[in-house]
Amino acid sequence: MFAWGVAVSVRAPYLLLMPLADHLAVPHGTPFRLADLDPRGKDRLQKHTGAPDSKEAAQAALETDIAAIADLQYRLWAENRRALLLILQGMDTSGKDGVVRHVFSGVNPTGVRVTSFKKPSEIELDHDFLWRIHAATPARGEVGIFNRSHYEDVLVVRVHGLVPEPIWRARYETINAFESLLASGGTTIVKCFLHISRDEQRRRLKDRLEDPDKRWKFQEADIEERKHWDDYQAAYEDALTRCSTPIAPWLVIPSDHKWLQRWAIGRVVRETLEGMGPRIPKPRIDVSRMTMK
Amino acid sequence: MFAWGVAVSVRAPYLLLMPLADHLAVPHGTPFRLADLDPRGKDRLQKHTGAPDSKEAAQAALETDIAAIADLQYRLWAENRRALLLILQGMDTSGKDGVVRHVFSGVNPTGVRVTSFKKPSEIELDHDFLWRIHAATPARGEVGIFNRSHYEDVLVVRVHGLVPEPIWRARYETINAFESLLASGGTTIVKCFLHISRDEQRRRLKDRLEDPDKRWKFQEADIEERKHWDDYQAAYEDALTRCSTPIAPWLVIPSDHKWLQRWAIGRVVRETLEGMGPRIPKPRIDVSRMTMK
Repeated sequence: MFAWGVAVSVRAPYLLLMPLADHLAVPHGTPFRLADLDPRGKDRLQKHTGAPDSKEAAQAALETDIAAIADLQYRLWAENRRALLLILQGMDTSGKDGVVRHVFSGVNPTGVRVTSFKKPSEIELDHDFLWRIHAATPARGEVGIFNRSHYEDVLVVRVHGLVPEPIWRARYETINAFESLLASGGTTIVKCFLHISRDEQRRRLKDRLEDPDKRWKFQEADIEERKHWDDYQAAYEDALTRCSTPIAPWLVIPSDHKWLQRWAIGRVVRETLEGMGPRIPKPRIDVSRMTMK
Repeated sequence: MFAWGVAVSVRAPYLLLMPLADHLAVPHGTPFRLADLDPRGKDRLQKHTGAPDSKEAAQAALETDIAAIADLQYRLWAENRRALLLILQGMDTSGKDGVVRHVFSGVNPTGVRVTSFKKPSEIELDHDFLWRIHAATPARGEVGIFNRSHYEDVLVVRVHGLVPEPIWRARYETINAFESLLASGGTTIVKCFLHISRDEQRRRLKDRLEDPDKRWKFQEADIEERKHWDDYQAAYEDALTRCSTPIAPWLVIPSDHKWLQRWAIGRVVRETLEGMGPRIPKPRIDVSRMTMK
C-alpha cells in the first residue's frame, strides 16, 4: 500500500507534465490489440492535462499551436541543420488529408513538403520499396509530411498478398534500419496512426456517397477495402509494435472525433519542434567592414 | 476630340474592370526601361479600382483574397486536371520569400509545391539549364511556386558572363518554347518581377545587417551583387520583353511597399485561379448499387 502510494505521488505529476506523444506511443515489441484502444480518445487522453473536452476548446488550442508551429518552422528553416518528418497512416476516411489541411494551412509552404504516396508507378516498382520514399524525405530545414508511406508495403501489400510473406516480413527490420539512417542524418520522425472505429468509417463513407461536395473523394475500391477491415487491423498491429522504436515511435491518435485528432497531432508536432529547439543562426559578420552605395 | 471622347468612354470602364494582371503586364517585344516604372506603384495601380491606398486596407483585402485562393486551390486539387505555376524573380531583398510566406501561408500545403532555385549543383550543371526546372514543374492539380527560376540563366549568368553571349541569347527562344510546352500540358503560368528601387534595396540590406533577427539572411555576396545593379536591370529588361508572351506574360509588381506588393500578387493569383474556374468533379456513381456492412 505504502509503495503504491509513493508510486502514485511520483507518477501523477509526471503524467500531467509528460509530452502528449508519451501518452500515445506504442511500446516496442509488445503485442496489443487496436480494438482495446478507444478511438474516441477517452482512455488515452484523459490523463493529459491539456486535452480539450469540447470541439470549441480543441479548435482554440489548435489555433494557438498552429501559430507556434509556424514560428518554430521558420526557425527550423533558418537554422538549416535538421528536419522533421511526419508520417500519417490510417484506414480510408481516417482523416489524413484533413490533418494536413487543418494543421498545416497557416504554415509557410516554403520548407513544408507534402508527399501523398499512391499505388506505385511502373518505374517505382522497378526499384526496391524504399526508393521512392527516400527520394521524398525532407532536406535540412524542411518539414516533410507523408500522406501514406513505406508502411503500405507491410499493410496493403500484406493484406492482398502482393508479395510472398517472407518478403514483407523482412521489411519491418529494413524499415527500422532506414528510419535509423534518417534519424542519424538529423531527421526527427513522428509517426501517427489515425485510429477510427469500423462504425465511424461506415458513417464517413456514407457521407461521401450522399454529400455531392464530398463525392469526388469516394472510390468504389473503398467499399472493397472495407471488407478486409480485420486483416488491416492485424497488419497495423504488427507494423506498429515492430516498428515503434525509441527514435521513431508510433503514436495511436484517437480519430473518431476529428477535432480531437487534429488537436492531438497539432500538439504533438508543436511539442516535437519545441523539443528540437531550432535556433536562428547568428552569423559573424564584421559590419564595420561593410560599405554600400 | 470626339473620337478621343469615345475612346475614353469605352476604355474607362474596361480599365476599371480589367484584371489586375493586364495593368501590370509587359508588352511582348517592346523595349522599355524599368527605371520608368515607379516601384512604389503609383503609376501602374491607380487606374485599378480595387487597389488599396493604405497598409491596413491592403492587409484586409489580402486576407479575403487568401481565403478565396485556399478555396480555389482545393477545387484545382480535386479537379486534378490543370496546374498553376507562379514564378517569382527580383533583385536581392525584393521580397520573394516574404511573398510566399504571406500570400501562401493559409493555403493547404497538399498541392502547393515551392521550389527555391539556388546556384546549380554539379549534377545539375551536367544537364541543360531547363533540366532541374522541368523536374520541379507542378503536376495536375498542383500550384507550383518558383522562388527564382530558369530566368537566372539569362540574368546572373549574363551579368557575370558565365556562358558566352550567343549561348544565353539563344535561351530566350528556348524559354518561350519550354513555357509553351508547359501551357499546352495544362499549366497556367504567372510570372512576377518584384520591382524595387536601388534606394529601397540599400535600406533593406542595412536592415538585415543591423537587425540581429534578420542577419541570418545577409550574405556578403549581396553587397557584391549590388554593384552590378545597372547590368541586372538591363538583363531584366531584355528577359521581360523577350519572354513576355500571351500564354506567359511577365508582370512588373511594384515592390517598394511590401504591403502593396503582397496585395498585388495575391490579387493576381486569385484572379488567375478564378479565370481557370476549377470545378470539383462529379463522378457518376450508382449509389443504389452500394452496400456496406
